[in-house]
Amino acid sequence: MTSTDVDTGGRAPNSLVPSTAVDGTDVYSPNGDKVGHIDHLMIDKQSGNVAYAVMHFGGFLGMGEEEQTIPWRKLSYDTSRDGFVTDITKEQLDTAPARGDSGVADRDYEMRLHDYYGMNPYWI
Amino acid sequence: MTSTDVDTGGRAPNSLVPSTAVDGTDVYSPNGDKVGHIDHLMIDKQSGNVAYAVMHFGGFLGMGEEEQTIPWRKLSYDTSRDGFVTDITKEQLDTAPARGDSGVADRDYEMRLHDYYGMNPYWI
Repeated sequence: MTSTDVDTGGRAPNSLVPSTAVDGTDVYSPNGDKVGHIDHLMIDKQSGNVAYAVMHFGGFLGMGEEEQTIPWRKLSYDTSRDGFVTDITKEQLDTAPARGDSGVADRDYEMRLHDYYGMNPYWI
Repeated sequence: MTSTDVDTGGRAPNSLVPSTAVDGTDVYSPNGDKVGHIDHLMIDKQSGNVAYAVMHFGGFLGMGEEEQTIPWRKLSYDTSRDGFVTDITKEQLDTAPARGDSGVADRDYEMRLHDYYGMNPYWI
């Protein structure tokens, strides 16, 4: 199969990035306010999907930052801002479900998390 | 794969890992020989899929290592080895299509790459 007329699958040419470049990327609200930044992604190694982004927000000069795990599908990439956009608000982040002791890979927590953001679990 | 009452979606509990932990993970052949290791992943930010793993292989004590991009779906995670397994051989890596000047995000190259490994493109 060759291709001058390549099926881009709806993908912007510059949407393919090293995992290392995603870490640190800013996250904005739809109106352009900075909500926080991505610290790292959580990857489902078996399915090959990015499941969550672990976001840092709040704080000042790196102090007092808080961390929340958010479903990856709540983020969309905005090439014009070179950052992600989400409709999750700071208020929502403040009251999001707390992670259990077993970390992110805890199905109960994950169900509550998706439910909180009104989404189907990523693995369904 | 054992499961509790929770729908695991076919996912092993420990398959969810930070993107940073995937980098450096060893890659083995089905018979257990080490083929190389993962340097980093390439993520399709818009779809949220991991598209490729950039693998380093060959060389000695970090010198003379070569790099190849391989489709992520050619890797499966083996919890018993704490590493990935692939049926891609070293010989295949040696003669794999060379990346163009525009990097990995080059649809012509990506088509040739998937074709070389006998796969459908990840975006289809």
